[in-house]
Order: sequence, then structure tokens, then C-alpha cells
Amino acid sequence: MKKILGMLGGMGPGATVDAFSKLVTNTQASKDQEHIPVIIVSIPDIPDRTENIIHHGPSPLPAMIDSLRILERAGVSCIIMPCNTAHYWYEDLKSSVNIHFISIIDTACNKIIEMGIKRIALLATTATIYTQLYQDKLKKHKIECIIPDEINQYKIMQSIISYKAGDLIKAKELIYPYIDQLKSLGINKFVMGCTEIPLILNEPAKIYPNDFIDATEELIKETISWYNLNGYTIDDELNKVVEHY
Amino acid sequence: MKKILGMLGGMGPGATVDAFSKLVTNTQASKDQEHIPVIIVSIPDIPDRTENIIHHGPSPLPAMIDSLRILERAGVSCIIMPCNTAHYWYEDLKSSVNIHFISIIDTACNKIIEMGIKRIALLATTATIYTQLYQDKLKKHKIECIIPDEINQYKIMQSIISYKAGDLIKAKELIYPYIDQLKSLGINKFVMGCTEIPLILNEPAKIYPNDFIDATEELIKETISWYNLNGYTIDDELNKVVEHY
Repeated sequence: MKKILGMLGGMGPGATVDAFSKLVTNTQASKDQEHIPVIIVSIPDIPDRTENIIHHGPSPLPAMIDSLRILERAGVSCIIMPCNTAHYWYEDLKSSVNIHFISIIDTACNKIIEMGIKRIALLATTATIYTQLYQDKLKKHKIECIIPDEINQYKIMQSIISYKAGDLIKAKELIYPYIDQLKSLGINKFVMGCTEIPLILNEPAKIYPNDFIDATEELIKETISWYNLNGYTIDDELNKVVEHY
Repeated sequence: MKKILGMLGGMGPGATVDAFSKLVTNTQASKDQEHIPVIIVSIPDIPDRTENIIHHGPSPLPAMIDSLRILERAGVSCIIMPCNTAHYWYEDLKSSVNIHFISIIDTACNKIIEMGIKRIALLATTATIYTQLYQDKLKKHKIECIIPDEINQYKIMQSIISYKAGDLIKAKELIYPYIDQLKSLGINKFVMGCTEIPLILNEPAKIYPNDFIDATEELIKETISWYNLNGYTIDDELNKVVEHY
């Protein structure tokens, strides 16, 4: 039996759809049966991550662990979590299960390093910026990470909140001026370090895929690579050979 | 605790993404926490439904029951399955669990009846056509169900197979001439009775939403209605009141 991937989603639901969609479209498959088996837990009633980190709201960790336990009981072999801010609790989550867990922060940073980028603007929630999830990793590789001033960061956070509330137009209006401002300063590499941002910036990211590093897309590509190396048991491999002959 | 919806997916994975996406976009929510909790099992290694019904291939039922058991063990309160052909086994699946199970065929047919449509063209897999899943229900309401001749049905099936293999252009090329042919005969109501078809016919379905009945969309709308009536426990309702004051 093929191994099953587990997706700890719901943060938010739209970003979970995007991650699932990217999993399906990035998988090489000529029929249903060749796609990667996945169980997605999208139970969005998880206390807001930024509210907890910035404003001392209730911790999301117990609810995240509840979702993780559902995946564990279902027998998944690898876990991904398409939410950057939630990776503040990555070590807590990882250590609470004995399952391979791929970090979205690590995969996005690795992509930035591989691309030889020396300076990049970080687009993320206020909590992701505050907890230095990206800055700490990029600093080790001497990559300059540009973060917004307080007013622009407020607008980016409002953009993310607007997207989550279903107002894509407002979300775009709130973030585009900052992108233009950075471009006018000669900064044209951006890491979309919040899983709602690729959905807000889908148009420029499509036109300039090398300028907008999509953390979700990188996570999914890394997951597919992991699956292609580790997802099949010896029985599966034998079945493939039998089918071939 | 809010009730959890279960989605028996993987048939095919792209159609499961579409159903999940429609669930999120059709839900009225101002923040993550207001979205419907859902667990999606997309384990696509289920024997092909049409192959079984038409060419006596292996039965998909045991694998579908395996997916259903995962949802049952995770504690879901309502099940949906975004695959029309798989509803040939609807009664077997429904009777194997003690969980509310909403039928995509029933919801799509109810929509057609409500709209007062008297004649509709069925776009579906060869197995869905052969097993009369739609025809039997529509006949009871004196609705004429137009099914393709053998050559056109072959092309529609190849269109669905092409979509599943990732070739959207070929999928479109194979199905569009039949739509045009029917339109030239004055037939302009279509039921997209295969969950891949709204993805192939997304353009005309967007332009003429009243002409293209999308079984996936109807299933999702019915599910959200069910959830709004049945998804909340008394504790949830009390919490809502407490939050309000």
C-alpha cells in the first residue's frame, strides 16, 4: 500500500485549498490512481496565530495537536502544514508525533538560498515577522531580509485578514502599493511567506514567477520529491514492475 | 464542538480540489474560525468506476469503504462524495456507516426539478449513463434526459480521461463540439453529471450558469444548508450568544 500524506490545514481554509490544488497540479500522473494519497484535516476553529503571538490571545497549539492526532490515527507517513505563522509551533508539533514533518519555512528558505538571492522582501503576517521565522534562517546564509515598516506591515496584515473574510479586492488594494514602493527602490525579489499571499498576489506571481517565491508551492514541490523517494513500499515497487510486464 | 464534515474524495483528485474549493467559497465566513470543519480523504488508488461497471474490472467498493472507515473513525457527522459514478454504490456505502450521507445525484436532480426544466442533456461518464443514475430519477418527474449517441459518449469519456491525465486542452476539444451540436438543435440545458466536467466546461458554465447545472456546486450548497441547520451543537449556539454579548 502506498504511504499517505497528511495535511494539517484550516489556517486558513482557502490556503489549504491552494496547497491541495498545487499538490494535484504538480504531481505527474496520467490517471487518478497515480496521484499521491492525502488526508486533509481542515478544522479552522483554531485560535488565531497572530492574535496569540502579538496580543496574548489563546494558544492555538492544543487545537493544532488535535488535528495532528486525527492524521496520526489515520496512519499518515508525512505531515505538511500550509501555514507559515503556525510554524512558530513547528518543534512542539513535530516532537508530539513520530512522523516525518516537512517545514514550509525551511523549504522556502532553501529555495531562496538555491536561487542565489542576496536580498529579499518578506511578505508575511505580523506574527511571522515578529517571531523571526524567516529572518533567523536567512541571516545564517547572509541573505538580507527586508521587512515592512509598521504602517506597511499593518496594511499587509489587514490584506491577509480581508482575504480570509472573502474580500479579495480589498486584500489586493492593501498590498499592491507596498510592492510598487519596493520595486521603485530596486527591490524585486519577494518571499510570499504567508499562505494567503499567493492567493492575493496571484497575478504578479504568475507574470514574474522568479521574483515571487511562493512558500506553499515550494512546500508542495519538496513534499512531492519526498514522496517520490519515500512514498512507495517494496510491494508497490514490485506491483509497478508486474504491471509493466 | 462543531460537527465535522467528511469528504470521500480521490475520484478524481482534481474534482476533490474543486469540491473543497466550492465549499470554502460558498461558505459565508468573516474569518477562518467560521468555516466548516472538514476532513478530506483523497486516496485515489481506487479501481476505476467506469472500468468496473462497463468492462468488469475490479470493484472499487472495498477501497471506497476503506476511505469511509477513515472518516468514520475520525468522527465526521456528514459525508459527501464528489464523484457521480461512485454513487452507483451509494446505498452500499450509506448502509455501511451510521452517518448522514448526502447524494450528489439527488441534489443535482432536485435542482433540475426546482428549476422547472423539462428537457436536459446529461454529460457524464459512460458508467453513469449506463447505470441510469440520473435518468431514473428525472423520469419520475417527467423530465426528458438526453444522452449522447455512442460516438459522442466515447468522446465525452475520452474528454474526462484526458482531464484526469492533465490534458485540459484535449479535454475541451473532445467535448465542445457536442455542446455546440446540441445547442444547434435548441437544447441548451446541461447537467454536468461528472465532477470533472465543471472543470472542463468552466468557461461556458461561468458565462451561462443557468444553463449548466453543476452537480458538484449543488452538492456543496446542499451540504452547507445541512450544516447550517445541523452542524452546531447546543454548546456552540450558547458560545455564539456569549460572544455576541
